[in-house]
Amino acid sequence: MYKLNLETCFSPALYEPERHSGAIVVVIDIFRATSAMCTAFEHGAQAIIPVATVDEAREYKGKGYLVAAERDGFVLDFADFGNSPFNFTPERVEGKTIVYSTTNGTRIISLAAAADSIIIGSFLNISAAVRWIKMQKKDVVLFCSGWKNRFNLEDTIFAGAMAARLLSGTAYTTICDSTYAALDLWSLASTDLIGYVEKVAQRSRLRDKNLDDCIPFCLGMDFTRKLPVYCDGILIGIEVQ
Amino acid sequence: MYKLNLETCFSPALYEPERHSGAIVVVIDIFRATSAMCTAFEHGAQAIIPVATVDEAREYKGKGYLVAAERDGFVLDFADFGNSPFNFTPERVEGKTIVYSTTNGTRIISLAAAADSIIIGSFLNISAAVRWIKMQKKDVVLFCSGWKNRFNLEDTIFAGAMAARLLSGTAYTTICDSTYAALDLWSLASTDLIGYVEKVAQRSRLRDKNLDDCIPFCLGMDFTRKLPVYCDGILIGIEVQ
Repeated sequence: MYKLNLETCFSPALYEPERHSGAIVVVIDIFRATSAMCTAFEHGAQAIIPVATVDEAREYKGKGYLVAAERDGFVLDFADFGNSPFNFTPERVEGKTIVYSTTNGTRIISLAAAADSIIIGSFLNISAAVRWIKMQKKDVVLFCSGWKNRFNLEDTIFAGAMAARLLSGTAYTTICDSTYAALDLWSLASTDLIGYVEKVAQRSRLRDKNLDDCIPFCLGMDFTRKLPVYCDGILIGIEVQ
Repeated sequence: MYKLNLETCFSPALYEPERHSGAIVVVIDIFRATSAMCTAFEHGAQAIIPVATVDEAREYKGKGYLVAAERDGFVLDFADFGNSPFNFTPERVEGKTIVYSTTNGTRIISLAAAADSIIIGSFLNISAAVRWIKMQKKDVVLFCSGWKNRFNLEDTIFAGAMAARLLSGTAYTTICDSTYAALDLWSLASTDLIGYVEKVAQRSRLRDKNLDDCIPFCLGMDFTRKLPVYCDGILIGIEVQ
């Protein structure tokens, strides 16, 4: 029986666009972008426009959009709030189109532009994402954002969690060392996720800026059934049954 | 107390030369280049010249050098033998300068050119390499060759083995997620190294070409006390007590 292919990419610097033109690409940035996006849709956001630069974010603000934008842990002066999932409350986001400033996220989406489809994954919507993927019958790439092109652990263990679910059926197979590594790291992390991420570099970075309050939340499973799907510069949240 | 820094790099595509100019770089290509180089020095080779292209290898052959060169699993017609460690027998290599064809290895060495020093690591010389590093009192980068820029498991578990030894003392510390991942993967692999590498992609590649006979040998610890050190285009093997 022909099996679908599952791969994992640990960094934008390792992504090979030409190899993944027919695949579903799952964009992963657990601390905090993809977790925040899933939260926004659960709380009723209508759409999210990811933008790379401060200038773009400011321009959208001028047009009346709600803007979530930080640099180095500080909310930009023109923005409505920062990039933490906790900022995307129902009161603020319901029915709104939000501009989300994310240099890395925007770069990843543009790298993956030739893919069959681009979706946003996080622990918060993992079951919904897996159910949706299984319906598509396409190859999958688990694309970890990393940090400044570097490997990171939190995105990797999420990729491992997702790979474990996809490979538990008969549809998918892998011959990719990155996926095997992610599966093994997930097997070590899964019994005590919050304890495991104590050591990750991004956790220290967020703690140093008092931005780590959202970490236990970002590691919680299935907060939402909404799956953010990217299309023509915009993310919309589809409800997955 | 000031501690020395330990980092791990999973692929040439992730290496940041400017950040590592004062460090010792350990070049790792377990299947098979760095294992073969360590074997050659244990068997009496005087020096190894790593070259990137077939043309360079052929040119050296014309000058009378012993040349180890393969492409896609086939020994090149002008070469003396292929790239497996088993080819570097004492009868062939004692007292000789050998030209070793390795596209990836040569690229890595040139990427690391600004480092304080470049050494060759493999399971075959792990204890010697660790002893030598501890004497230098310098930061260390464990530089995995990977395969065609991709992450691979065998180089990563070796990096984990080496990191475990360096971090077991008080001299080194790390805040690098790649190192944590390598340590965790080593903890899973170390109890049954040969069993663990059954799944790695390079093992399948070598098996498909009948080149996998050297795998158990490449996973054996401390075959030699020789440490290949790179200097001005040439590797020499120093004996580490």
